[in-house]
Amino acid sequence: MAPNDIYRTYPPSLTLDQEEYLVQTVKNWSIEHALAIRPSTAIVSEETNPNHVLATNAPVTLFPSPFPKPCFEQARSLQQVYNELYASVASDEQWLEEIMTELIEVDDFLANLWKIHLSVKEEGYTQNLTLGMFRSDYMLHAPEDAPPSLKQVEFNTISSSFGGLACLVANMHTTLATYPSPSHPIAYPPHPLFANSPESASMKSIGHPPPNAAVSTLTAGLAAAHEAYGPSKSQPQLATCIIFLVQDTERNVFDQLALSSNLYKEHKIPSFRLPTSKILTLTSIPSQDSNPSRPLIYTPPSSPSTQYEVTLVYFRALYAPTEYNTPASWAARHHLERSAAIKCPSILLHLSGSKKIQQVLTSQPPDTDHVKSFLPNHSDDTLLNLRSTFAPQYSLSSPDPNVEPEGIRLALSESTAANHVLKPQREGGGNNIYRTNIPPFLNSIPRSQWRQYILMELIHPPSAAKNTVLRSDGQVVRGNVISELGTFGTCLWKTTPETKKPEILHNTEGGYLLRTKGKDSDEGGVAAGFSSLDSLILYEEP
Amino acid sequence: MAPNDIYRTYPPSLTLDQEEYLVQTVKNWSIEHALAIRPSTAIVSEETNPNHVLATNAPVTLFPSPFPKPCFEQARSLQQVYNELYASVASDEQWLEEIMTELIEVDDFLANLWKIHLSVKEEGYTQNLTLGMFRSDYMLHAPEDAPPSLKQVEFNTISSSFGGLACLVANMHTTLATYPSPSHPIAYPPHPLFANSPESASMKSIGHPPPNAAVSTLTAGLAAAHEAYGPSKSQPQLATCIIFLVQDTERNVFDQLALSSNLYKEHKIPSFRLPTSKILTLTSIPSQDSNPSRPLIYTPPSSPSTQYEVTLVYFRALYAPTEYNTPASWAARHHLERSAAIKCPSILLHLSGSKKIQQVLTSQPPDTDHVKSFLPNHSDDTLLNLRSTFAPQYSLSSPDPNVEPEGIRLALSESTAANHVLKPQREGGGNNIYRTNIPPFLNSIPRSQWRQYILMELIHPPSAAKNTVLRSDGQVVRGNVISELGTFGTCLWKTTPETKKPEILHNTEGGYLLRTKGKDSDEGGVAAGFSSLDSLILYEEP
Repeated sequence: MAPNDIYRTYPPSLTLDQEEYLVQTVKNWSIEHALAIRPSTAIVSEETNPNHVLATNAPVTLFPSPFPKPCFEQARSLQQVYNELYASVASDEQWLEEIMTELIEVDDFLANLWKIHLSVKEEGYTQNLTLGMFRSDYMLHAPEDAPPSLKQVEFNTISSSFGGLACLVANMHTTLATYPSPSHPIAYPPHPLFANSPESASMKSIGHPPPNAAVSTLTAGLAAAHEAYGPSKSQPQLATCIIFLVQDTERNVFDQLALSSNLYKEHKIPSFRLPTSKILTLTSIPSQDSNPSRPLIYTPPSSPSTQYEVTLVYFRALYAPTEYNTPASWAARHHLERSAAIKCPSILLHLSGSKKIQQVLTSQPPDTDHVKSFLPNHSDDTLLNLRSTFAPQYSLSSPDPNVEPEGIRLALSESTAANHVLKPQREGGGNNIYRTNIPPFLNSIPRSQWRQYILMELIHPPSAAKNTVLRSDGQVVRGNVISELGTFGTCLWKTTPETKKPEILHNTEGGYLLRTKGKDSDEGGVAAGFSSLDSLILYEEP
Repeated sequence: MAPNDIYRTYPPSLTLDQEEYLVQTVKNWSIEHALAIRPSTAIVSEETNPNHVLATNAPVTLFPSPFPKPCFEQARSLQQVYNELYASVASDEQWLEEIMTELIEVDDFLANLWKIHLSVKEEGYTQNLTLGMFRSDYMLHAPEDAPPSLKQVEFNTISSSFGGLACLVANMHTTLATYPSPSHPIAYPPHPLFANSPESASMKSIGHPPPNAAVSTLTAGLAAAHEAYGPSKSQPQLATCIIFLVQDTERNVFDQLALSSNLYKEHKIPSFRLPTSKILTLTSIPSQDSNPSRPLIYTPPSSPSTQYEVTLVYFRALYAPTEYNTPASWAARHHLERSAAIKCPSILLHLSGSKKIQQVLTSQPPDTDHVKSFLPNHSDDTLLNLRSTFAPQYSLSSPDPNVEPEGIRLALSESTAANHVLKPQREGGGNNIYRTNIPPFLNSIPRSQWRQYILMELIHPPSAAKNTVLRSDGQVVRGNVISELGTFGTCLWKTTPETKKPEILHNTEGGYLLRTKGKDSDEGGVAAGFSSLDSLILYEEP
């Protein structure tokens, strides 16, 4: 069966009885296993749920989505290389500064982050360890005339989410495909990609999603940082803990709890949830005189007589400009940055995840080969492999005012624009502009603003891909879909300003996320209900 | 610290910050671990939740409730004796018939159940194994002038629920008392019953609830029955399964799923949920000619080409008169009873759990010593121990019309009535009448109806007991409480009509439930939000 046939015949169709059973099973399974979110006010009004007790299933696909095995394996094989690449970027302050200089003129958010870095640098950093909890996001590029390939959409350096729920979706789809037996699952009708049809034997499919190690990988990363922090720097010494920094109105709570619970279960490391609004009241740093190493002290509101020293601040918040709506937010970020706690991420690592950095890294020789210089110890084959996942991206600004950048040429011509998307460089900076809407859009704004955008070649995912989604409000929707694969990795390194190179202490990959959304929607986040959590069923080219 | 002091100082008081933290932690923990129920329409309207996706925390206490260790151990030590007692009752059809003869005149529900038994008996039972999944419910009787003792409220022989959620509550309270360390839990302030106060060492408390083995005990019972059923009786043989018979509108789903999931995890036995409305469409029994052993065949609606033979029907439905609102409900119960599937419970075991049976069993020598005759192999000490848990109960009818039964005398006098409760014998037969309301109530109804009631001496639980409850709508209520301890047990036996004695194949105890309700409410079930799930913190007399 050729790949396109797989997408055309998948998922198997359901009778009304079958769909009712499958949907009911998914509804129950998801709450039983905390594959859950707090509902948005669009689903349940504040008036109905004033105490915020209700929960609902995360939006999920009823079936795992087919994915070519070589592409999945490529993403996994590249994760540690990507981890190292971004550790290197974040360790090279000078290189980052050159790019930031241009960016901070157009982006207050990045400018404020940079200012915090400069301020702490001036005071002197007291922590040279950084933890990255990364998720590299890809789409499958599957033009009609070539085998499918991976193209990177984004590399997340802060608040990479859904590792917890993604494991659960893979477990759920596995249960649906194998309960009570793989040859006779009662939830899924026969299909060659499962193990329940006469043609199954001819497919190189294991019949269910591959195991998802995201939770153990991510918690091992947190544990590595906690251990590397070493003993308490306080006098007398304090018990140590990890802080999960969370949004005050977080709805994706159970994804985060999957990590903190496993952190305690597997590593016996206590962690506490700290809402961003309480950073400055519940944490403190001793004065320079009393303790120049600046330990971050956390006082649990429920147990004010017990103080903890924070080894690691794991950011599941403060990633978006909209979260910094008061001067106190910026003060809080500065407060954390100057502390001795390891940050996941540091300001420099946070900045390294901006779209502009991704665009600069993708620039190909004969331009400066940044990738090669950041990864000097990797073979050309590895770097070629890495570069093969870059989707072409273009700046709309040029160092030389006499040369029209290629990005502008491609963006202004209707025929070439038709294969591109225009993305604002600013974080949280507005919507993407697609295809032939690009030339009229650019012509409607002053040319001086063009450099605020990056032009990216469109990725063409498999056009026949279909799935069925159970939304968080319980509605079942079906149709053509686009999926985005994320692979998780963690990296802990030490930076010494002299070398500008990271000394890597821990570098792992493990676990994946598939997010699937309806094809009509060009944007959307899972928690918002527009897209859904999915898992993989791997196939190989015949 | 004397027991009354324990109740007077417990639970420790909370600052606003402490309560907020504790409540938020409980809200999140409960959904993360499926200590959850589907909300009632009083919490979320059908209009808001038309697809029934929402879930909320089960109503739970914020703290485990103190309980005297000797009473808990007594309940555990008696469980297997009680299991055997009810196995013996259910095996003695003739003894049951004598009691039923009177009952069925006043109770259509019991009469209809009895009719089904007679009909199947006439046709001939094809299954001589019965499974009991029991919960023996007690209250603590703690008058001022005597040490506390256990008094049995009810012995449940059908649909004994909350084993799944009770394990979770015990785990939750244990986490709250020990995270991140027993000496410094951040959720609970210091109290001698925890391990976090200077006086803790002097208390013989482990500082958290005892482990709760309800789920493993109950699933082992289901597994024992499944194994004892033996090979498929169909030609050709079919795969076998257990059926969880559930209400169509069940809200306590996750309590049930805890058992079915563990049944597959620990024993690899598949089980399917069958709503009562679909019994007659999804199960069938081959005609007498084609297969006289009457296997019960289940056809999953989602996979109609796969048939299963049902080894065991585990009733989590059809226990209350209100569930039999159509002739089809009775036909369905008859259909299941005549099948070869093991029933948990059989009709005779279901009937054995009626209040009248409990009242008859409590009758003391010189009346007939039923307990002794049902448990001929137990020591007098054991039987004395068992009888010590009986609360005095009285019939309001008399075999001799010339003798005024003691029950009537006690019920009509205001001074003695003040220490009693009047309970309808009929299952689901209305509300209990308390204390001095009893005489005027009896005088307001015809004397011929008096025999529909049983008079029971009131149990006096510790008057100073207090706790705080997080309801399913998120409201926090605190005050004086009354708790009811349930201990779980399972029993599998073979009945041969000749001996009238059960041949016991499996008899276990394990796991407990504490249900705690506000003292003002004389009635209430946990799922309705009036009472809450709790766990124990054991103390010993000084």
